[in-house]
Amino acid sequence: MTDLAEKRKDYATLIVTGPDQSGLVSTVTSLIARNNGNIVSLDQYTTDPEGGDFFQRVVFHKEGLSAAVPEIQTDLASTLNPLGVQFRLVEQKALKRMAVLASKSDHCLLELLWRHQRGELPVSIPLVISNHTDVAEAVRSFGVPFFHVPSQGPDKSAAESRIMELLAGNVDLVVLARYMQILSESFLDDVEVPVINIHHSFLPAFIGAGPYRKAKERGVKLIGATSHYVTKDLDEGPIIEQDVTRVDHTMTSGDMQARGAYVERAVLSKAVRLHADDRVIRHGNQTIVFD
Amino acid sequence: MTDLAEKRKDYATLIVTGPDQSGLVSTVTSLIARNNGNIVSLDQYTTDPEGGDFFQRVVFHKEGLSAAVPEIQTDLASTLNPLGVQFRLVEQKALKRMAVLASKSDHCLLELLWRHQRGELPVSIPLVISNHTDVAEAVRSFGVPFFHVPSQGPDKSAAESRIMELLAGNVDLVVLARYMQILSESFLDDVEVPVINIHHSFLPAFIGAGPYRKAKERGVKLIGATSHYVTKDLDEGPIIEQDVTRVDHTMTSGDMQARGAYVERAVLSKAVRLHADDRVIRHGNQTIVFD
Amino acid sequence: MTDLAEKRKDYATLIVTGPDQSGLVSTVTSLIARNNGNIVSLDQYTTDPEGGDFFQRVVFHKEGLSAAVPEIQTDLASTLNPLGVQFRLVEQKALKRMAVLASKSDHCLLELLWRHQRGELPVSIPLVISNHTDVAEAVRSFGVPFFHVPSQGPDKSAAESRIMELLAGNVDLVVLARYMQILSESFLDDVEVPVINIHHSFLPAFIGAGPYRKAKERGVKLIGATSHYVTKDLDEGPIIEQDVTRVDHTMTSGDMQARGAYVERAVLSKAVRLHADDRVIRHGNQTIVFD
Amino acid sequence: MTDLAEKRKDYATLIVTGPDQSGLVSTVTSLIARNNGNIVSLDQYTTDPEGGDFFQRVVFHKEGLSAAVPEIQTDLASTLNPLGVQFRLVEQKALKRMAVLASKSDHCLLELLWRHQRGELPVSIPLVISNHTDVAEAVRSFGVPFFHVPSQGPDKSAAESRIMELLAGNVDLVVLARYMQILSESFLDDVEVPVINIHHSFLPAFIGAGPYRKAKERGVKLIGATSHYVTKDLDEGPIIEQDVTRVDHTMTSGDMQARGAYVERAVLSKAVRLHADDRVIRHGNQTIVFD
Repeated sequence: MTDLAEKRKDYATLIVTGPDQSGLVSTVTSLIARNNGNIVSLDQYTTDPEGGDFFQRVVFHKEGLSAAVPEIQTDLASTLNPLGVQFRLVEQKALKRMAVLASKSDHCLLELLWRHQRGELPVSIPLVISNHTDVAEAVRSFGVPFFHVPSQGPDKSAAESRIMELLAGNVDLVVLARYMQILSESFLDDVEVPVINIHHSFLPAFIGAGPYRKAKERGVKLIGATSHYVTKDLDEGPIIEQDVTRVDHTMTSGDMQARGAYVERAVLSKAVRLHADDRVIRHGNQTIVFD
Repeated sequence: MTDLAEKRKDYATLIVTGPDQSGLVSTVTSLIARNNGNIVSLDQYTTDPEGGDFFQRVVFHKEGLSAAVPEIQTDLASTLNPLGVQFRLVEQKALKRMAVLASKSDHCLLELLWRHQRGELPVSIPLVISNHTDVAEAVRSFGVPFFHVPSQGPDKSAAESRIMELLAGNVDLVVLARYMQILSESFLDDVEVPVINIHHSFLPAFIGAGPYRKAKERGVKLIGATSHYVTKDLDEGPIIEQDVTRVDHTMTSGDMQARGAYVERAVLSKAVRLHADDRVIRHGNQTIVFD
Repeated sequence: MTDLAEKRKDYATLIVTGPDQSGLVSTVTSLIARNNGNIVSLDQYTTDPEGGDFFQRVVFHKEGLSAAVPEIQTDLASTLNPLGVQFRLVEQKALKRMAVLASKSDHCLLELLWRHQRGELPVSIPLVISNHTDVAEAVRSFGVPFFHVPSQGPDKSAAESRIMELLAGNVDLVVLARYMQILSESFLDDVEVPVINIHHSFLPAFIGAGPYRKAKERGVKLIGATSHYVTKDLDEGPIIEQDVTRVDHTMTSGDMQARGAYVERAVLSKAVRLHADDRVIRHGNQTIVFD
Repeated sequence: MTDLAEKRKDYATLIVTGPDQSGLVSTVTSLIARNNGNIVSLDQYTTDPEGGDFFQRVVFHKEGLSAAVPEIQTDLASTLNPLGVQFRLVEQKALKRMAVLASKSDHCLLELLWRHQRGELPVSIPLVISNHTDVAEAVRSFGVPFFHVPSQGPDKSAAESRIMELLAGNVDLVVLARYMQILSESFLDDVEVPVINIHHSFLPAFIGAGPYRKAKERGVKLIGATSHYVTKDLDEGPIIEQDVTRVDHTMTSGDMQARGAYVERAVLSKAVRLHADDRVIRHGNQTIVFD
């Protein structure tokens, strides 16, 4: 067990979602109490006090958590199912397995690897895949396996199949760290784990290719980056995190790209941390973020 | 009842503090549930999972809250007193009565009056006091009574006595909106309500008089403002909110003062809102802020 | 002469634009020197060192400036015209006359009036026009004339004619402080002075009506405001200034509107200051901002 | 010649400082024009229009710059010396040679190495020195020589002598990237090149050791980092750059340290870029920064 997993031992995260109803918070906290859990943090949100949707994230500590999980699951099911409420209980020591897909540029990728090495991202990284070999050496210097899957022409199906083989069963999360390739709908249908992207603009401004060029042309005074879940609609998925930085007329689109890289790596790293820590709940095309 | 008070009717804020212990969250939420309250938001913090101090803020909605408050108070006392835990239950419609003490400059004062007028500060403003008359007309244009209490030489006791007469029994909070006078220890002893100040620097940098001049001399690249509870130690009280803005070598200390004014008014307004909404809990010389 | 105009006496701002060429900076600074001006600040920008466009803003001080202006103008013309270079020389004491058009909401309008009163905006404000009367009293309390020009149904030509009568010859700048009406093309053709707008989104995101509602629907994590010159293409004019503030899932579009108001007033105020100080040069649909 | 040096070929930076006087800007720009330089950027600042100090940074392009430098130097000397004005002319292709002194922590060091690799820092890095070996491998993976000079007890003179041997004649700049050792006065006397430090607080708050612990104790709501020139007075040297990030009551001083690391690396990197590009002029204990 890694240091981080060890530190997270005996901590559970419980996500509860469903129709809001009176007494729901008490129901959940009482359940944790009768299972001898000690609540460490509790966040909740209701879209509407009258008949809205309820979202809750509770972290609790319990000695010997792993042994007790089946029992708590049973209690949760028998308590919450009748109320039409969904739940998800995860042991925090079970770090999410994250694959990173990259291309030539290394800034987002290296930032993830480096933050992971510092113990700041609660994930494991079983592999990095790139359609170029530029980053291979850097990736391996972090002790992470690297796979080269070249993109070959307009038909991406062979490359995507190869990627799917590498991912299948091995990962809980795919992160596109400036991957630059658009994944096909069938890939997204089959991948079965969340896919997080970093787009190099403040969405919904400058959707699609060339956002720094478009930003220069439009003469904006701030540029940004957006991390979101990938859906079939390009750059339209639920947003997890965004940030911006100031630019001025002296900067070329190349200068903007260089400066924007620092926003991209920060935004993607934060989004990955939030997701990996089960702090993000999708709600239609929006996200509830308990940070 | 004002629109804001009307909107806050039937909402209660419960603050719970004391030694952390297993099941405490459940105890509190169950109590609210059995009193037919519906929890709207819940924040908590423990200084240490093992034997630390526990802080909780719960907002709940209950039809006919006012009538039920005595009963809930009794339930809280009989439930929490045995655990050595303190509580404070406030009805949100009972807006805190805020006195503002100002001097010549109007930026912080006007911002408070203006945000109050927009319904963004959950307070009433029974009076404004100044040692100058510059702001009298502006204050009265907001429909707020203005009192002129001149500072007269080094002996401030007469002025402070006059201020105390005006405040006594009439306010729940005193805000120093660039008041520029140091309140005596005896005044602070007697005032019996919290006093919030705005200091025109990023504390603990530049304590005392002339912070913008000192900032210029030191050549800092950011200036700031700090809102804090006033204690007998000048500029040393618990900090509620801080922010900064960028400056450069071209700016004189006068320029810094002009720009800093915008940070001061934003920081003080936010601190007042947080306090008025019972989102700030003092903890030694620090604050827990549930924003 | 106002205090601000007095303070700006004997200072000139010279704007020079045209095809870049070797020695141009020296040509301009030598001209100022031989006219006994002392350069106080100098900013320049070239789109491309090879054959690009050149933009320069020079501020210089000269005793008895007003008397010397015709002579300097003649020198500028005979020196720069042969080079195909344009120039504009303004005395800083000649404050730009700014009309403000507002609607019901007061936050941007009051901020402009208040900053002007503090001497932070180098303009005079001969009049404020609104299609509602809500802000009349507040405007007049600043000693500024207020005119009510109601919008009457879909045909705006009568209202626009009335506005044009009020403006004609009296102003150098029109500012739309959340005016909420779209000015017709013919109005924009006839007005003959720059028109500055504040749009309540981070353009080019959320063009048109309802940007806070759209921001909520898209689930963005930052909202913003944009001040730009008005052109015939709605929300497409050259951007002068933008800024953003953080939002989260708990905020309704109404909450976003309330918080966004603080960004709007700051962004518009800054844009007005920059324009009024001749720090903004339009360049196609972009701006050069020498701040 | 590296790509960056190649790109900077034929560009010169001229720094001019001295007593302000009428016509000085024209004198300098005319000199550049008569030497066939084309001014690319020009910044200037005067502490006081009447009898103040003048600071100017001019960048100009000239074909075949290197060959012409002696001639331009002669012209500068004969023109500016009589005016009591100092100047410094540097060819931009002559990248400053930067030594980095580090300790165990890698965040500032790696950021410098990585930005340098991306061509964003106009320096060369002949060596990195650390009193520990933790970062040796990472440094060498960037192709940069690493030297281990252990600190041995309270007497640092042996270690400092060894460091001085390594630096002497080889560097133009020493950067302390969280070096954690206080350099002796005699070392600072002898080193003969500027030394830039990153302090992990918003100076002048929290001078000396343990700033994150002190920040936690004081309960501040923002933490920061400051990059400054090292002088004999600890943490009192001229500030080049500062920035802050938000913290809250839930964060331990360890959490603050982890988050603060991201501010430290950004602030130090920016300070190094500014210095390396001759954008920082020391003025007493302050800095003029032409960014």
